[in-house]
This record gives sequence, structure tokens and C-alpha cells, in this order.
Amino acid sequence: MGVVAALGFEVQARCRVTGARAGLLHTPHGTVETPVFMPVGTQGTVKGLTQDHLAQELDARIILGNTYHLYLRPGAETVRKLGGLHGFMNWDRAILTDSGGFQAFSLSTLVKFSDDGVLFRSHLNGDAHKFTPESTVDTQRALGSDIMMVLDECLAYPASHEASRAAMERTVKWAKRSFRHWEGYREGETQALFPIVQGGMFGDLRRSCAEQLCELNAEGYAIGGLSVGEPRGLSMEMTEATAPWLPADKPRYVMGVGAPEELPEYVARGIDMMDCVMPSRNARNGCLFTSQGKVIIKHARYKEDGSALDEACGCSTCRKYTKAYLRHLFLAGEISYSTLATIHNLRRYLDIMRQIRQAILLGAFPEFLRSVQTQAVPAG
Amino acid sequence: MGVVAALGFEVQARCRVTGARAGLLHTPHGTVETPVFMPVGTQGTVKGLTQDHLAQELDARIILGNTYHLYLRPGAETVRKLGGLHGFMNWDRAILTDSGGFQAFSLSTLVKFSDDGVLFRSHLNGDAHKFTPESTVDTQRALGSDIMMVLDECLAYPASHEASRAAMERTVKWAKRSFRHWEGYREGETQALFPIVQGGMFGDLRRSCAEQLCELNAEGYAIGGLSVGEPRGLSMEMTEATAPWLPADKPRYVMGVGAPEELPEYVARGIDMMDCVMPSRNARNGCLFTSQGKVIIKHARYKEDGSALDEACGCSTCRKYTKAYLRHLFLAGEISYSTLATIHNLRRYLDIMRQIRQAILLGAFPEFLRSVQTQAVPAG
Repeated sequence: MGVVAALGFEVQARCRVTGARAGLLHTPHGTVETPVFMPVGTQGTVKGLTQDHLAQELDARIILGNTYHLYLRPGAETVRKLGGLHGFMNWDRAILTDSGGFQAFSLSTLVKFSDDGVLFRSHLNGDAHKFTPESTVDTQRALGSDIMMVLDECLAYPASHEASRAAMERTVKWAKRSFRHWEGYREGETQALFPIVQGGMFGDLRRSCAEQLCELNAEGYAIGGLSVGEPRGLSMEMTEATAPWLPADKPRYVMGVGAPEELPEYVARGIDMMDCVMPSRNARNGCLFTSQGKVIIKHARYKEDGSALDEACGCSTCRKYTKAYLRHLFLAGEISYSTLATIHNLRRYLDIMRQIRQAILLGAFPEFLRSVQTQAVPAG
Repeated sequence: MGVVAALGFEVQARCRVTGARAGLLHTPHGTVETPVFMPVGTQGTVKGLTQDHLAQELDARIILGNTYHLYLRPGAETVRKLGGLHGFMNWDRAILTDSGGFQAFSLSTLVKFSDDGVLFRSHLNGDAHKFTPESTVDTQRALGSDIMMVLDECLAYPASHEASRAAMERTVKWAKRSFRHWEGYREGETQALFPIVQGGMFGDLRRSCAEQLCELNAEGYAIGGLSVGEPRGLSMEMTEATAPWLPADKPRYVMGVGAPEELPEYVARGIDMMDCVMPSRNARNGCLFTSQGKVIIKHARYKEDGSALDEACGCSTCRKYTKAYLRHLFLAGEISYSTLATIHNLRRYLDIMRQIRQAILLGAFPEFLRSVQTQAVPAG
């Protein structure tokens, strides 16, 4: 077919007990060690950080951009003219973009899904816009991300089996349309396109969706429609009901998860990639994740606490500043608080993933998982 | 007297035409090359930056802290317990703190000056507080700054000769009280205390104030009461009317100035130290200072401008990002905009000061000043 594989995925080690695996994801913008957590850079920047922080402080190898936001502002064509998202934000490592469908559904007003696509109004100025499976591929082509996502239909929780089936079937149709459209370009392309498994909170729908999407022979697969309000156990159950039906030699990506303690759980279920705004958003709101549990930095107990936020952490926030100083910056509403807090929380997430990866490579993941599960996590 | 000089000041070169001089200010926290611009770190942080940015990106050798803000939050005693302002913010280079008087006058409500001190209400919660000449020395001792400032009475512009004389006379009395109080501690102390020349916009009052303050034999002198709404020519005139009456072997500090093009003008009038919120505040508001003049970054003309903000600038913002990207971050309200913009504007100020210093050392300051004065500064 003359199709150049945009991505290479190599499984380096598999856990003998769980579904966990460690791998290498080769992208046109560098190799990513998996399992990986991808910091969310919604509008062409990870909130609170510069790209120097991302590369030097966190050594993030892949970040996520939101197509919905970039499409509205500054516009995909503007980004394309300025060198794609890599050139625009001066980030030469890997980028994954979502399709924009989830944000159109969750952020905009007057959303209307039809077989053709999604009609929505911009949350910025109310202008009417439409995403179709084809248009979101085109938009992501202009953004130039290494991994693009197909448009899918995501339902709020709870949704009936019937509604979930309808959205799943539309999602499959849209995925096929996306790939058909993409095939027109695909020769020599260096971007990859991932379909997304939907099916609400129903294992039979998830399996059916996964099996249908496998026919697309994609370079990776995502599990969407989680973190939409369901209990956390259910997100895990749906992951379990989906992952086994996805190709074992392709990366699996659960979208929009999770809490720090959930990362090893997803990995145990065969997941290689995750993203979530939780570390960066919680950082800005004063909730910091440490090896000893959560720290709510505004608490009066930290007023004169001259100790590091997390003695076990090597990030510059923990090496250089005290809890008392972070609390002061938070209460004073200082910009630098957001920077220092985001550095730490993302470093925590990336460190957890590095620990998980090491455990898998050493054949010690079951023990690692058990130690995490039994660890008392005091709230701060 | 057994008094240890906290500061050493060494004039390395004097301009043969103007009053400009290049020097070295030796502090307990390192040597500062003068003339120097001090970034303002109001609440124990320079807004938008981390201390890594200040040290590594800008190589700032001295920064300013605001006593009023730190006194109210987190409180001087808390800062003292956490290692003084140096330890609290993890900054091992020099720090100058103001006395808090100016902020009590400009930020708080229901200010009342009496011979004893300043009564004011906190802008944070309305609580009543009082600063006296003695208490502000004590507060700054707790903060542990390298250079402390005496409490002074600053008037809004315009003020009559009579009102200006009264405030000046009170300022002199307060300076004497401050030094008397300070003498009680001074043995072995490593902090320095600078008196402040007031006198409104009247040269005779400025001269009289300077002459009276010289009797204190301080380690440096400040010129205050400028940038209070007067025309810029008048600020310069008052500097001219004051600097010659201050000791030639001591550093001279004009408080709260100035615009980029004014920096060499102050230096030409014998000034060694300056501070101003302009570079950092304007950065956050979208006004960027470049070698080619001001850039108002939100302008539509920059939407797809892939060039650096200032081709002549070596800061990381200019080396790594485009005007189009900065504009996008500004319009999107991203935190990283403030960081990148503040890095650039402060770098611009510090670079101008380094250029001025080099010109003085090379004996070429008059030519430098002329070239700056005749340079057309297009607005962007």
C-alpha cells in the first residue's frame, strides 16, 4: 500500500500476573517510554509552565493539545502557517491532539449531534461551528500532531443501554469515515490516527465497539467516554471490559484519567497512555499530590512549615521551596504559585509512571501494585 | 564605634561629561554591579517568575521586597522564623526592602500620618495597623534584607511648598529616629539603612533635606517622592536638584522609576540604583519593551507574525517563541504569557543597565546617551 507507519510501538516487557506492559512508542518527534502520562496543554501551553519546564524540569516526552480550543483560537490555519503546533509552541517532542468532540460536548452551548457531525456554539463568543469526522482530521492535519484522534460521540453519565448503543454505533461509523478520509492523504504521512472505543458503561457495547474498530488496523486505540461522572470502579471495569479486545501489539490509551493512585490500576489493565487535567488543575487549586498523600496547601498548619512539600521528590519546587512559602504564594494569588505547584504535581505523575515502568521492566509490577494498594494515603 | 559597614560601595569609573558612574555595591549577599535596576518582588516573589528565572535567566543580583505587603502577609515574624526573606523565598542574592510607608499611603484606606507614624487599614481585610520609624526598622530586621529603608512621608502630586516642607521635615525627623533606633542594634549588624530625601517638587526643599540627611552618615541614600503623578521632566529635575547634595562615595537610589528610555537619564544625573514595577506590570498587561520600541502584543498585526519579539534580545522568550505565540497566550489569558513576557521586559531593563555600565566603563557614556536620546522609538 505504500503506507508509512507513523508510529512504532514496541513492547519491551509484560507483567506475568497483570496486563501491564512497558514499551517504547516511536514517533516522528522522539521516542516515548510507556506507560506514559501526557500533560495536558489545552491551548498550546501547559497551564503555568513554559516549554523549558516541560522539557528540562519534567522531561515530558509527549503532551496533549486540545483541538477544540486551538480550532477556535488562534485557529488551525494560523497554527499551520506558524509551523504546526510543534513550531507554534516551540515543542519538538511528541504531541497528541484530541478530536475536539469531547470539548464541543462539554464546554460549548447548544450542542447538537447528528449523523453528519457535531453542531456547537463557541464558548468564547457564541459563534456556530460544526465538526465532522472529516473536518476534525483536517483540523488536526493543520495542527500537525503526531497522534490524531477520530471524532466520537461521548455521552454524559448515566446513559441507557439504548442511548449508549446508538452513540457507540455512530462513533464506529464516524471512525470509519475518518479513516476513509485519512486514507486519501495517508501516503507518506507521518501523523497517526487513533479510533476511540465508546459504549457507555456496558461491557457488551465496549467489546462490540472494540472489535469493529480493530478492522481499521489503526496504529493505536483509545478508550473514551470515561471520567464523565461515573463511579471510579466503573471506569476501571469498563477499561477491563475493553482492553482485552484491542490489539496486543498496539498502544492503548485511556482518555481523561486519572487520580495518582489509579495510574497503576489502569496500567495493570493493559493501558499504555493516559492524560488528565487533574495534576495541573488541582495544583492551581491548592491540592498537591505527594508521596505521603494529598497536601491542601492553604491549611493553617503549613503557615510556618519550613519543610519541603515532598521530601521524596526531586522536582525544583521540592528542592528549593518550603510548604510555608508555597502556602504564602497561594494565599497571595501569585502567578509563581501556579508554576511551582504545577511543576510538582506533574513531576509526581511522571515519577509514578517511571516507577511503574521500572517495576514492569524488573518483573516486580505485582509487588509494586500491591504496595500501592495497601499504602495508607493520609490526606493533608 | 565598632560599627561594621554592611555595604561597600566602590566607584569604578565616572563619566567625564555627565554625573554617570559605574560601581560595585558589595553586600552580604553578593556584589552588585551598578548602575542597577532592581526587579520588584512585592510579596516575596517577582510576579510571574520563579527564583530560577531571576538568577539563571536574568542574572538579577538584587531584588526589592515590599515591607507593607510582607508585614501584612505572611507577617514579618513568620518570615523571620523561616530564615528571613532570603531563606523564605530561597534567594541568596541581595535584597532591598522599602519601609512600607509608600504602600500604606497608596494602597490602604484611611491613612493618617502623625508625628508618631502612619496609621492605616490593611487593603486585605481592613484591620488597623501602625508603622512608626522604629517599627519599620524592626520589621525590616525581621525580614533580614541587605538594605532597609527608613519610613518617610510621601505626598501626592501636586502639593504646596508648605505641605512639602512639612512632610520633608517630618521625613528628616523620622530618619533621625530610625537611625537612633537602629544604632541600638547596629554593632555587628550586616543590614544597611538608607534615608530617603523628600521635598516634593521643590529644589530648595530637596537640597535642604539631602543636607540634613547627610549628617546621618548613611551607607547610601534614596530619592523618594517621585513617580507620584508629576510630569516626567519634573522627576528628572528633582533628581538633578538632589543628587549633587548627596555624598559622592555612596550609592544613590531613585525609588520607583522609570521608563526604559529614562534609565540612562537618571544615570546621567548620578543615580546608581532604580526600581520600578513598570517592566513586570506592563508585561502582564501586554506592553512589551523592545530595542525597536514598544510592542502592544494583542494587536492583530501580530496574529501570524512568526518573528521573535526582539531579534536583538537574548532572553529565552525571544530565542524560543514568536510574537504570534505570545499574542495567542495573551489573548487566551494563559499564565505562561505572564512568565514569558516578564522574562523579556525585565531582561530588557537589565540589558539596558548593562549597556549603560559598559558605556561608562569604556568612557563612552555621553555618546551612548546621545544615541539613545536621538533614537526614534516607534510604538508597536
